[in-house]
Amino acid sequence: MTSGSATMTMDDAGLSAVIADAGLSIAPAELRALLKRVAASGERAESTAWTELLRPDLPSDVVRRLQEARASVAAAAEPWSRARIDALLAVLARENLAGFVLPLADEHLGEFMPGAARRLSWLTGFSGSAGTAILHRGTAALFVDGRYTLQAEHEVDGAVIEVRHFKQPPPLEWLAGRLTQGERIGYDPRLHSVKQADALVGAIERKGAVAVALAQNPVDEIWTRRPPLPLSPVVPHAIEFAGVSSDDKIEALGRELTDAGHAAAVISQLDAIAWLLNVRGGDTPNTPLVGDAYVLVRASGQADFFVERAKVTARAAAHLGNRTVTRDVSEFPAALAELGAGNAGVLVDPDRTNAFVRDTLAGAGARIVAGTDPTLARKARKNPVEIAGIRAAHERDGVAVALFLKWVSETAPARTVTELDAVAELDRFRARDARYRGTSFETIAGSGPNGAIVHYRPQASTNRRIEAGELLLVDSGAQYLDGTTDITRTLAIGEPPAGARRDYTLVLKAHIAVARAVFPQGAVGGQVDTFARQHLWAAGLDYDHGTGHGVGAYLGVHEGPQRLAVGDATALEEGMLISNEPGLYKTGAYGIRTENLVLVREHPDLAGFRSFETITFAPMDRRLIDVALLEPKEIAWLDAYHAKVRAILEPQMPVEARAWLAEATAPIA
Amino acid sequence: MTSGSATMTMDDAGLSAVIADAGLSIAPAELRALLKRVAASGERAESTAWTELLRPDLPSDVVRRLQEARASVAAAAEPWSRARIDALLAVLARENLAGFVLPLADEHLGEFMPGAARRLSWLTGFSGSAGTAILHRGTAALFVDGRYTLQAEHEVDGAVIEVRHFKQPPPLEWLAGRLTQGERIGYDPRLHSVKQADALVGAIERKGAVAVALAQNPVDEIWTRRPPLPLSPVVPHAIEFAGVSSDDKIEALGRELTDAGHAAAVISQLDAIAWLLNVRGGDTPNTPLVGDAYVLVRASGQADFFVERAKVTARAAAHLGNRTVTRDVSEFPAALAELGAGNAGVLVDPDRTNAFVRDTLAGAGARIVAGTDPTLARKARKNPVEIAGIRAAHERDGVAVALFLKWVSETAPARTVTELDAVAELDRFRARDARYRGTSFETIAGSGPNGAIVHYRPQASTNRRIEAGELLLVDSGAQYLDGTTDITRTLAIGEPPAGARRDYTLVLKAHIAVARAVFPQGAVGGQVDTFARQHLWAAGLDYDHGTGHGVGAYLGVHEGPQRLAVGDATALEEGMLISNEPGLYKTGAYGIRTENLVLVREHPDLAGFRSFETITFAPMDRRLIDVALLEPKEIAWLDAYHAKVRAILEPQMPVEARAWLAEATAPIA
Repeated sequence: MTSGSATMTMDDAGLSAVIADAGLSIAPAELRALLKRVAASGERAESTAWTELLRPDLPSDVVRRLQEARASVAAAAEPWSRARIDALLAVLARENLAGFVLPLADEHLGEFMPGAARRLSWLTGFSGSAGTAILHRGTAALFVDGRYTLQAEHEVDGAVIEVRHFKQPPPLEWLAGRLTQGERIGYDPRLHSVKQADALVGAIERKGAVAVALAQNPVDEIWTRRPPLPLSPVVPHAIEFAGVSSDDKIEALGRELTDAGHAAAVISQLDAIAWLLNVRGGDTPNTPLVGDAYVLVRASGQADFFVERAKVTARAAAHLGNRTVTRDVSEFPAALAELGAGNAGVLVDPDRTNAFVRDTLAGAGARIVAGTDPTLARKARKNPVEIAGIRAAHERDGVAVALFLKWVSETAPARTVTELDAVAELDRFRARDARYRGTSFETIAGSGPNGAIVHYRPQASTNRRIEAGELLLVDSGAQYLDGTTDITRTLAIGEPPAGARRDYTLVLKAHIAVARAVFPQGAVGGQVDTFARQHLWAAGLDYDHGTGHGVGAYLGVHEGPQRLAVGDATALEEGMLISNEPGLYKTGAYGIRTENLVLVREHPDLAGFRSFETITFAPMDRRLIDVALLEPKEIAWLDAYHAKVRAILEPQMPVEARAWLAEATAPIA
Repeated sequence: MTSGSATMTMDDAGLSAVIADAGLSIAPAELRALLKRVAASGERAESTAWTELLRPDLPSDVVRRLQEARASVAAAAEPWSRARIDALLAVLARENLAGFVLPLADEHLGEFMPGAARRLSWLTGFSGSAGTAILHRGTAALFVDGRYTLQAEHEVDGAVIEVRHFKQPPPLEWLAGRLTQGERIGYDPRLHSVKQADALVGAIERKGAVAVALAQNPVDEIWTRRPPLPLSPVVPHAIEFAGVSSDDKIEALGRELTDAGHAAAVISQLDAIAWLLNVRGGDTPNTPLVGDAYVLVRASGQADFFVERAKVTARAAAHLGNRTVTRDVSEFPAALAELGAGNAGVLVDPDRTNAFVRDTLAGAGARIVAGTDPTLARKARKNPVEIAGIRAAHERDGVAVALFLKWVSETAPARTVTELDAVAELDRFRARDARYRGTSFETIAGSGPNGAIVHYRPQASTNRRIEAGELLLVDSGAQYLDGTTDITRTLAIGEPPAGARRDYTLVLKAHIAVARAVFPQGAVGGQVDTFARQHLWAAGLDYDHGTGHGVGAYLGVHEGPQRLAVGDATALEEGMLISNEPGLYKTGAYGIRTENLVLVREHPDLAGFRSFETITFAPMDRRLIDVALLEPKEIAWLDAYHAKVRAILEPQMPVEARAWLAEATAPIA
């Protein structure tokens, strides 16, 4: 999913030649700057969609040369040095700040963000996906959760930055314990949610210190060779995939706002914007988002779409509905101030909106109404057209996964396959599909002990050759124009290790318990989570992650509000898409996880009840199942599932793979 | 559990004769007043414990005559009339109050309360256990939950008082919707928890109205023939039952307060006080509580026990430990003010302390620290001595229940037994035990359609003859000196009705799922609740109550914080006692519930995991079980349970009942 390796940078003469052949009117320096921004986007190296930013329908030869030019500009990263911390401390001193709190987040508070927003990573050298840095009176501390403590200690220079567990004590408690009366502590209100900022300010002020919302992030002024903001075109998401027009969605939200007596709502999460406007983009890796964008939905049923003008191609402008007004993203703060000046009631989601937005609105006189982003519940419940697309995408994805499973189980026992080989091969099988847009997250391929590391992603430094007698856990997903997938299979390479069959079968029982679950309207994710866990608990086992997460429709592979997790209190509503992925991890030996996606449906027979429809189709490794541990209803479920896998995949499989499929899906008993 | 029916009142001459024979120095009028207060207590009519209030060790003949005197003073209730509402409206008008909010609660916010505290019942005529009345500008409304809407409409004069469902809309929302600027709304801060009062005041003030905390409850000045406050002696709860001395408990709480930096904690729930001081009383029905009492625990490790002096017999005074200072309850407000004057930090549980206490403390300058009553978690986890007592009580209670089940299943098919007969007979079986102190709640005996009414208690007006071909649901419990029990059995009278065997077996599966549950440390009640419910959900069925509630040790049959219920987030800790009582209700046909109590224990084999030990022993009706619906592990559990029931009960059973027991506990398969 990352762009290809750098080749020699194309010089101005080379760029001029491409420009001339393409018939463009752009200076070579300008094209170079644009190429750097395209290279910073999340688009796959193979994707040519970005060339539409220059001109639609360029000849293929020109496109090929533009791709070469793009590949030639990729920037190399500089090694970390403590000078970064020292420089930041100097800026803080100049600003009379005793400290500074920096989360790993951007203005949109989403899961994926461009390199330019990874200030914490640049500052500390930590490459994980979650963390908070605090500088205070010469001390730098990095707070990470249990997944990342080892990695952070490995990546971060402990002599300069203290690595701390984020609960022992939490960052704000740690900071509060050090504060003295009157100290000024800075934070960037764009990088904290309203709720986080309020907690931060409260913790600081309770100690008699002063929380300072900074107008500019102090990292930005010291960050040398900062990656540019990504640039990719706004791509129409056709009604054949979206099911409901953007106009209809905006109109419905407008009515909702009118009924509640609010003037407007701020939508600042990028997946919410993509869903509402039926657009997709390439600014972030793994998720097809338009970056650096906001929407104001008004009670009048109009939406202002704040986005960089260059991203809005003619095709995108034509696609955006009658209810959408496109404005440059630089106008967003002024638009907030204008809205606030009228003393309007504005709906702001305190968990999903940054504090700068709230502060700007409130400062201008707006009445802030705290409430959940109104797109959230609507986006979570897929409409029939989305469901049809999701089903189709999964039926095709299943073929790629099945062919991969066949390949790896036949090839790996000969000790010729590494984890990274497996990742690449799976991507190649998927890339045969015309609608494939890349992975929905970095593929996890953990062999042997690596499988027991829940967040493991193979990298050059950790890559292992897959050995016979091991388990291989592969958790991967794809983005297709019609749907997002996420599937985990665990398979034996040769003869499985001791204990693996029992453990695999317990995980399978947990998986089947969710797949077969029947629950009333109003039942919540925390209840269904228990359906799975009870089978492991009975053996004194458990797993330290959720049983399932929500999934978008050609959007985020992680999407709220639905979850299957301990303590979750979100009702499971018809049309929600969610993963079913219990697991079991034996440190130093192997990891097991079995994951399908399921759709919440009305129960076909029981009024007032709901159940799941499993929509992921790929064989589960029969060699790892201890039939004696399964109950008759579990065996019946598995056999019926495999029969369906075969019926759906076989017609799409090459003839020479069908015997393998038949065996892999044969009845277990 | 209520006192006997009134006989002719004993005159002064009669009382004088008893006084003389007993050698007491008390005036007849004084004795009459005392007898009325004793009659208002929760003591059983048979109980003679109260005579210790006059003098210990009275001759048995004198005790008998005192009992006659007590029975002769019972007051008859007056019928409800609308004059009560009119009188209250007049008081409100005089006080310039536009409205008044009256919950069904007393100062201690517990489940059971004496008649003198049931202001809402007197005012409205509603006899249920939960409700809120609001008078506002001539309108009177009574808010009750779904259990009570039918009953309230039956009992309450709809022309005078509007009966409303407490969620459509909630009382405070209803009131807020009617308020106008500047209106004064009264409430009695003694009858609302801190949290409730804050919500009430907030809702009123947000509308620009004024919430007025009243110095005196306006109902009290118009309540004619109000029952007196109950009077019963403080009874020592011996260390052989309590396990830990009161001194040790108070010392531990004192250390906890010292460590947290608080000066004191207010304990105002009566079961918490009984537990902390190792005392019991008879002031409330069904639960052996000392009424009208408070405790202040100080960081110094001393406790002030505020209680009416007359209740503290010489025996009780000798029993109370070195760390307890007894003070008259009338001194409590002044003691709060004194505590507050020192600007002390005082721990107040906002859910379990009334607002008057908080307001008095805060008004005097105390720093209020909101936190959970520190006795709660300690009381919930039973110590080994309590567990031994609880086990012994259950083993004896099982004999009474088994003999009752034998009697009713043999007698009722001949159509000679009513629900009230069954209630009385069960009480007689239990009363054979020397440690029996009465029922732990009013016995539910619902035959046929009455069984489907979850909160049904047979009364003269609803009493039904139990018919052959019906189910009988009996949910009952007992207070013994060494433990509190709660058990439900559903049995077939003759041949069971259609569908009953399937439904009984589904409930049994749910019950067994909880009984067999294995769960990790930290697992909460909401998770184990799902263990039970999933078996009914699979058939499109459910029950609209919790799966289990906490139970005290010779204390409340309902005790927190532990529960098995949807959404409950309390961790199940070793030593907690909790009911396991899934059910199923077919309106108009029958109700089914199967209830045992279980203790949370460390799992004997699986480190870090917990499981339940079932401690209730009585046969489950084998004739109602459809073995084909049970899995082998469920059959194994049932047979092992019944074998244990037989092993424990048989030696205690009369010889002639043993053949019945053997058949009732024979293996099912």
